[in-house]
Amino acid sequence: MISWKNLDTLDSFKALKNFKETDLKEALGGAEGAQRVKKYSVPMAEGLKFNYAAKKVDDDILNGLKELAREAQLSEKFKALYEGEVINTGEKRLVLHQLTRGQLGADVVVDGVNKRDFYLGEQKKIADFANKVHNGEITNGAGEKFTTVVQIGIGGSDLGPRAMYLALENWAKVNNRLKMKANFISNVDPDDAAGVLSNVDVAHSLFILVSKSGTTLETLTNESFVKDALKKAGLDASKHMIAVTSSSSPLASSSDYLQAFFMDDYIGGRFSSCSGVGGAILSLAFGPEVFDEFLKGAAAEDKLAASDDVLNNPAMLDALIGVYERNILGYDCTAVLPYSQALSRFPAHLQQADMESNGKSVNRFGEPVSYKTGPVIFGEPGTNGQHSFYQLLHQGTDIIPLQFIGFKESQMGVDVDIQGSTSIKKLAANVAAQIVAFACGKDDDNLNKKFEGNRPSSIIIGEKLTPASLGALLSHFENKIMFQGFLWNVNSFDQEGVQLGKVLAKKVLAHDTDGALKEYSDMFGI
Amino acid sequence: MISWKNLDTLDSFKALKNFKETDLKEALGGAEGAQRVKKYSVPMAEGLKFNYAAKKVDDDILNGLKELAREAQLSEKFKALYEGEVINTGEKRLVLHQLTRGQLGADVVVDGVNKRDFYLGEQKKIADFANKVHNGEITNGAGEKFTTVVQIGIGGSDLGPRAMYLALENWAKVNNRLKMKANFISNVDPDDAAGVLSNVDVAHSLFILVSKSGTTLETLTNESFVKDALKKAGLDASKHMIAVTSSSSPLASSSDYLQAFFMDDYIGGRFSSCSGVGGAILSLAFGPEVFDEFLKGAAAEDKLAASDDVLNNPAMLDALIGVYERNILGYDCTAVLPYSQALSRFPAHLQQADMESNGKSVNRFGEPVSYKTGPVIFGEPGTNGQHSFYQLLHQGTDIIPLQFIGFKESQMGVDVDIQGSTSIKKLAANVAAQIVAFACGKDDDNLNKKFEGNRPSSIIIGEKLTPASLGALLSHFENKIMFQGFLWNVNSFDQEGVQLGKVLAKKVLAHDTDGALKEYSDMFGI
Repeated sequence: MISWKNLDTLDSFKALKNFKETDLKEALGGAEGAQRVKKYSVPMAEGLKFNYAAKKVDDDILNGLKELAREAQLSEKFKALYEGEVINTGEKRLVLHQLTRGQLGADVVVDGVNKRDFYLGEQKKIADFANKVHNGEITNGAGEKFTTVVQIGIGGSDLGPRAMYLALENWAKVNNRLKMKANFISNVDPDDAAGVLSNVDVAHSLFILVSKSGTTLETLTNESFVKDALKKAGLDASKHMIAVTSSSSPLASSSDYLQAFFMDDYIGGRFSSCSGVGGAILSLAFGPEVFDEFLKGAAAEDKLAASDDVLNNPAMLDALIGVYERNILGYDCTAVLPYSQALSRFPAHLQQADMESNGKSVNRFGEPVSYKTGPVIFGEPGTNGQHSFYQLLHQGTDIIPLQFIGFKESQMGVDVDIQGSTSIKKLAANVAAQIVAFACGKDDDNLNKKFEGNRPSSIIIGEKLTPASLGALLSHFENKIMFQGFLWNVNSFDQEGVQLGKVLAKKVLAHDTDGALKEYSDMFGI
Repeated sequence: MISWKNLDTLDSFKALKNFKETDLKEALGGAEGAQRVKKYSVPMAEGLKFNYAAKKVDDDILNGLKELAREAQLSEKFKALYEGEVINTGEKRLVLHQLTRGQLGADVVVDGVNKRDFYLGEQKKIADFANKVHNGEITNGAGEKFTTVVQIGIGGSDLGPRAMYLALENWAKVNNRLKMKANFISNVDPDDAAGVLSNVDVAHSLFILVSKSGTTLETLTNESFVKDALKKAGLDASKHMIAVTSSSSPLASSSDYLQAFFMDDYIGGRFSSCSGVGGAILSLAFGPEVFDEFLKGAAAEDKLAASDDVLNNPAMLDALIGVYERNILGYDCTAVLPYSQALSRFPAHLQQADMESNGKSVNRFGEPVSYKTGPVIFGEPGTNGQHSFYQLLHQGTDIIPLQFIGFKESQMGVDVDIQGSTSIKKLAANVAAQIVAFACGKDDDNLNKKFEGNRPSSIIIGEKLTPASLGALLSHFENKIMFQGFLWNVNSFDQEGVQLGKVLAKKVLAHDTDGALKEYSDMFGI
């Protein structure tokens, strides 16, 4: 029997407050440091591993976290989720994005539809469509092949798919898998659409309209923008557009699209990279086989997340340590720092996935919680960040936990040897050095040159960023966020906080305003 | 006589603690709301204005902040800075980036060199060079015009120039000012250079190597990477490369470059967009006249920052309110939210400019401070952010002050009218709506749909993002950061916190490690 309880009512949480804070300088910098790095490491899928030796935990705290996982019923809750309980209580919805990877648990049947089969069926439809585009069965009006694909979507229909595309673009180039170049239009700022259109050859572009409800204002506006441009170029828009939407949306059966592919209400936008939302653009850009490898990687990582052996469940362990940092140690932000230029927009995706899921002040029952929930998430790739905001991370007045990501090999395999090492070795040397610099610090009589240390980080290390390891990485963070939502007892799958702005913006456009809102509207000449 | 004192020793700061916190819901949502929006607004240069009606201030608190500005001698300190005192005490350097805009104060002469003349002279050299590239006097080895310019730099040699280029690229396109397309290589990850090179036509590309010291490892590594590529393409690298560096650097007189342009130690990397670091790429991309308009906008805003009339000095006022939020109200982060796709990387630039400047724990004299200094800065363009992390901003457990930026007109002028409004009106309506939503909130019996409000923001509003208004915007934030550094009594112009990582990375590459560092290095196979 699952019971949903606030974090601060759990005995195991209260007990955590009594553990002595780990002195990282001592633990990692001391004689046992090397041993600790070896020990505090857990294998992930696809050759990745999660190393938490530079986190402020020791065996006692880890035991405390195990107990917390047990008392909070993390494994049971995850199982309930993927087997179809109504976990998104606010919107009374199931949460089935893991099923888009097609592996976990028993079948989930809703209104007579087997959901696993449904998701896999849509994926198959997308694969067929993409293959036809690639082999020239589906072409533009002049019978010419499409060379470019442009996603029109915002939020979860943009950030995840864009981050995944960028993560694999160079990999695809050198592995002869780049079938079509991808672009993205998201912002209602007309300069976004106009700028992207000025860079693509519209006559050979296929546009993907992505909106679950079919009513997202930004996306419909940008669709019109693109249709205008197609029309002005003398092209038939309906021959250049597909839709990814829910089967009940107005887009589902419109003749405006070559074809529509479906998702449903059980896939939240920020968790939709493995559904058609990511599937259409990634399959068109790289081929369905690549998308399939990506899903397999995610599924393999999901399997680990389903384990109730905390120390061998990287997502659960990461989640528990994060809650310990947020609610016991009192740290307010987390920086995501991939040492991989290909992951340049991965932090922006996690920023949505995490902050939109767990940036809540009420629990699943709509009661206020009296503890901190989701932190601010931000980040940029290393080594770039080192020359930017790392100054504050090292010597600022707040401690910011860090999530590093790094790979042994580059994607493109081109390199130079300067001063006795290649660029990829320099990249790896930097991330290794940063972990130790943050944890152990350095004394100096000149306090301006002193590093306090004791700044915690973890790292996910992989061989190479590939479709499969990218899938595993994505799944890790999706599941981490879910586990943290369970711990904070919030509903990680709704987003009521985005509604008020929409309502007020409509009022502004309808000139139905007074007071301050009217004054701000006037300042913009609306 | 200037005296440098810690914030918490100032009577005016102590007095601020006694003011009653402003109830924004009441102040902005009440009958006086419209009046407040009109009143709490201050003109900036180039048609911009800074509106702080949605900040938690009232006339009493503003008077308190004025007193703080006086006691902290903000105006006197700024004057001392631009007239050549050694403000960067850690490195014993002058701080002269405002002089690159060529306007403020008396002449500054160092070792017989008039620094204003020096910066303007370099700017003139860059303009001449750019004109020759544009008119075909300077060409590639085959006598063909260069079409592309690629900046090789990291940190301040990358983030600012890149953000400025992206801010003006579409503006330049529609105004027939896009002379050359720009690209940027920064990360030591070899996939960064390889990826960029796979997208450009190297035979017609001019590369700008930017490193003040001429020793930045990432940049020299990427230079070699590019030289390799040029060589493999059968090209003479020295015909494709210029340098921006200090006159004492090893690059200054190297025959590896067509020409070298100079900056000096008095221009910090993160404040170098107006020096040759930004000047070379922006002049090549858009023409020297555009760069000149940009400088004029920055100079006009600097003039306002030099005023000792706090309520008419937007940068100083913004700085004071920020310190009030950080040190009296206890808010730990600031989100920068431009409603302008062109400003997509402006938050990343401010993230460096702010966090690297003021993320310090010791004062100018190397003594620990006992108050919080620089906050975490993050942000993404609106409306994209609304569909991402705004959930947490509206309903999360922490209050995050917000810095909005918006414009009345788009840059490209192409638009569509959907549901009775254009995209640019929708964009503006959204930012106006968000200010009020954050400040005033909304009650609801369902607490999951309730918005607490009382979440403060300010907005900078302009007519259009142009070279001049972009310059003014940049100057505003540079000066805000400087004033906050004065208030916190830190040295905003050094960055000792980046050193330890560099030292340890070198040790890793030299295999001179043991303990945890060796173990992490081994994990990467270094």
